[in-house]
Order: sequence, then C-alpha cells, then structure tokens
Amino acid sequence: MLLISNGEKLKSWNDGPVKQSIINFLNSSVKLGPTYIEPENRIATFDNDGTLWAEKPMPVQLNFIFRAFIKTAKKDPSLMNKQPYKSIIEQDKDFFHNVLIQNPDALMSLEKAMAREWTGKTTDEFESEVIEFFKTVKPAKYATNFTELVYKPILELFELLRAYEYRVFVCSGGGRDFMRTISEDAWGVFKENVIGLAPEYEYSNGTLIRLGKVLGGIALGPGKVEHIYARTGRLPVFAAGNGDVDIEMLESSKFRLFINHDDDKREYAYKSGAERIFALAKENDYTIVSMKNDWKKIFK
Amino acid sequence: MLLISNGEKLKSWNDGPVKQSIINFLNSSVKLGPTYIEPENRIATFDNDGTLWAEKPMPVQLNFIFRAFIKTAKKDPSLMNKQPYKSIIEQDKDFFHNVLIQNPDALMSLEKAMAREWTGKTTDEFESEVIEFFKTVKPAKYATNFTELVYKPILELFELLRAYEYRVFVCSGGGRDFMRTISEDAWGVFKENVIGLAPEYEYSNGTLIRLGKVLGGIALGPGKVEHIYARTGRLPVFAAGNGDVDIEMLESSKFRLFINHDDDKREYAYKSGAERIFALAKENDYTIVSMKNDWKKIFK
Repeated sequence: MLLISNGEKLKSWNDGPVKQSIINFLNSSVKLGPTYIEPENRIATFDNDGTLWAEKPMPVQLNFIFRAFIKTAKKDPSLMNKQPYKSIIEQDKDFFHNVLIQNPDALMSLEKAMAREWTGKTTDEFESEVIEFFKTVKPAKYATNFTELVYKPILELFELLRAYEYRVFVCSGGGRDFMRTISEDAWGVFKENVIGLAPEYEYSNGTLIRLGKVLGGIALGPGKVEHIYARTGRLPVFAAGNGDVDIEMLESSKFRLFINHDDDKREYAYKSGAERIFALAKENDYTIVSMKNDWKKIFK
Repeated sequence: MLLISNGEKLKSWNDGPVKQSIINFLNSSVKLGPTYIEPENRIATFDNDGTLWAEKPMPVQLNFIFRAFIKTAKKDPSLMNKQPYKSIIEQDKDFFHNVLIQNPDALMSLEKAMAREWTGKTTDEFESEVIEFFKTVKPAKYATNFTELVYKPILELFELLRAYEYRVFVCSGGGRDFMRTISEDAWGVFKENVIGLAPEYEYSNGTLIRLGKVLGGIALGPGKVEHIYARTGRLPVFAAGNGDVDIEMLESSKFRLFINHDDDKREYAYKSGAERIFALAKENDYTIVSMKNDWKKIFK
C-alpha cells in the first residue's frame, strides 16, 4: 500500500483543497476499508481537448482536418462550392460554431468529407499526414508546437495515478488514430490507451486500409462511456473533463475532476460548451480545478 | 536490458529448440542492434480457444451459448422447430460442424439467436449468466472447472513476455465480454487486454444495455488483425495461434508461435481447422509447439 500524503508528484499544483482532494481520494482508494478500490478496477479516464491540452482557438484535430480539406478543394475546385469546403475556405463563423455545438447537419457534412479524404488510405499514409501537420503547423498564440501545449499538471497527475496502480486512458470525441500518432511522445500514453472516434479498417496482405465507416458512434456524451466500456470492460473510477460532452463520463465515475478554464493570461478563459457541466460540478461533488489558481504552471 | 538465457520462467516447457527459439527471440528483441524492438512496439497477441485453453470437444463459449438457447427454447416452444434451436436440441452434428467451419448460414442463425438472447440485457445481467455457467457446468473429460483447463505453459509465457516489457493481449473469435468475465482470475489478463467479438451497447443513467449489433465484424482471419489494430494501434510482434483463423494474425507478426495439438493422452490430438496453418508453419519460419513433446505440464 502506498500513501503519498504530500503530493510530491503534483509539483505544478498549488497546495489547497483541490490538490488535497485528489490525494485524499487516491489514498482512500488504496487503503483497505469501505472506500478501497480493487487494483483491477483502478481505471482513470481523461478527456483530451481542454482537459489534457489546449482546445482554443480550435481543437487541434479540426485544424488538421480543415487544412486537409482545403488542400483537397484546391485540387478539385468543384468542391469549393460544396459543404463543408465552402464554409471552411470562407472561414464562416456560423459553420465553425455549428461544428462546435455539434449541429447534426454540420457534423454530417464533415463526416462525409472525412470519408472522402481518408477512405482507401493506409494507416501509414494517414500517420504520415498527421506527423507532417505537427511538424509544420504552429499554434497561433504560442511560439511552440501543438504537442507542447499539453497541461503539465495533468501529466503529473497521470504519473501520480500510475503510482497508485491506476491505468490511465485518454478518451476524446476526436479521432483515435490522430491522437495515437502523438500520444506516446507528447503524453506518455500508449496508443492502446487512447480511445476516440474509430474508423473501420480492412486488413489484407500486411496493410490496413481505411473504410468509409466509423465504429461505435461518436465518443461524446453517453458515447464516451460506451467507448470506455468497449475498450476497458469497466466504468472509470477517476474521470476528468472540461465540457458538457464529458458529463456522462464524469457521472459514471467515483471521482470527478472538472477543469475550469479561467486563465485568460496563460491560456484562455471561457465557459462556452461547459455551461451544464459547470452548474453540475457546483451542485454535485465534483472537484473543480481553477487553472488560474490551482496550477502553478500550465504547459509542459 | 534484461537477458533471461535459461528460461527459468518457462518451468513447464521442456528444454529444446522450441523453448530456446522463444527465449532467443525475446533476448534479441531487447538487445540494442538490428533486431531490437522499441518497448512501445512490444505487443504480444494470443488466440484463446486451443491456444490459451482447451477448445475440444467444443469451444467453452459455444457450450455457454447453446445452453442459453436451449433454456430459451424450453420457455418458448415455438422456437424448437427454428434454427439454430432445432439443431442444438437435436445435437445435429452437421450443424455443429458448419458452425466450426464458419458456414455463413449457420453463423447467421447463431448471430440472430444471440441477438434475441441478449439484446436489451445489461452488462451486469450478462456477466451474472457467465459466472453462473462457470460455477455450474463442468468439462466432460476432466474433473475440474473450465477455468482450470488453461495451459500452464502459456501462462508462464505471459509472465516471461511481461518480464521483457511486452504487453500481452488475448484475441479470440469468441465474445469479448464472455472472456472478460474470467480473464483476470483465470488468465491474469486485465479485461482491457481482451479482444474479441464486440457487442454494441447504449449507456443511459449508469447502465449499459446491449444492442442487437456487433461492432467491427468477427475477429477471425483478417478480422483478428483488424480488431488488434483497433484495440492497440499496432500489429503484434509476437503472436500465437493454433487454427487457420489465426493465420493472418501470425503473418502480421515477427515471431509466430503455432500450437500443435498432438497430445491425445493429456488433451486432444487433432488437425481439423488447422490444415492450412499447419502447412504454412512448416513452410515458413513458425515456431511449432508440440504439446506432447514441448510441454511438461498442460494445465495450470
């Protein structure tokens, strides 16, 4: 049994009730007694965009996808007047807003374009495109790479959880294979512990070719829990998120960490997309992280 | 770097070229040089029926499924004249043969009956049925439980692989959630490392309800590789199997272990369902395990 009372692994966290509530929960989960959690049940799940790395001004993967679409539309100008290409090229704010609030029409047009973009490609081809994106595209606000805009306090929390024999998973509404390309180097999370939107593949002669379908639906809202169960056979006991699409995942968990984006100096301050979870977090017993007050350092 | 030259972890394996080839491969994979395998790539995948536990006279899960169907048909006699119920109740050998060789009509009738049987049930309800099955049904040939008919040499190999920092996965054509119910206690494999036929679920208010569909198709032949990639983001570097349905998985791997069932005294001797892989194993560079000669002890 391991009891870390001083939170020495959470160096980028300020001392206070939030840090203490994490440590208290973990200590209580490994101490024999009514709050003990069997090692096999120690599953921790983290949302990605806004929980593990910055999601403003736009989720990293949307940036990647939109760039690919623009390239494709330039090669085939007949697409320029079609959705979603037209809105992306014209930088139509309504369209971006509709994507972010998951308007079904906007999502459907995106899904079709994604199928057109990557169906028939091999896993290696897709991976090369993702690597190229991370190498060449830089975030607007920071003089660094996207893979550096990972929250250091969360990486420390991964380490702390592992010290308590938790298995750490990332579960995002974004594409699984996009994240897996960088998950080991940028987050220290094995590919197999990354859960997300899952394309279907066909295997033949040593090669996996992407098909036009996704398996298991979107990993948002109840879909997050469905994806987590499919992957792990369990519900989480420790879960962290920052948006309304994380509510079901957090509600399915014993310990609930809500990341509140309130630091407009070092990152971004916003509540949009988190209205319901913010209210719930206060109502129920979520542990609410103020990025401004609880984190000494934001990025790794 | 770890070099285990004496195979001390493989106590139930006789000394000889098979045991040595496993140890040589593992040693070469952790030694810096042209055969080195990066830790993140160290994925080992094992078939279940016939590779990890006995599959004769009938795969354990078919036993479970058929018993459930018979119970259902007794409650609803209108099913007695329908397939697959009729053939199961009459113990029709042709039908069982057709299931084992994956005749599409036989599989389709099974799939429909499985959907009828478990659609709408919760994950907890299904798990209780599986637990009850393992508690009450005993193998015909042995005075023990099915969960004891696990091959001890393979469990030792799991441990050896882990000592070399391999992550061990089980990938079966059988149902994922059936296996996950016993995988931790019987095999020492976390639920999340069990891959197989995957039902779709719907999450609502803390409960996961099974839907009538499966996701990602069957985990046999190329489907095994597709399931492994979906789950791990990689192809295996170490793979073990015993049937034709394992060929693609083994071919996608660097090291290929083929379990030859040639011990009719301690287990069963048979080649049916393994004709193609047996030929391939000899032709190519598979490591062929003779259960009779290479294993001191069969069961745990």
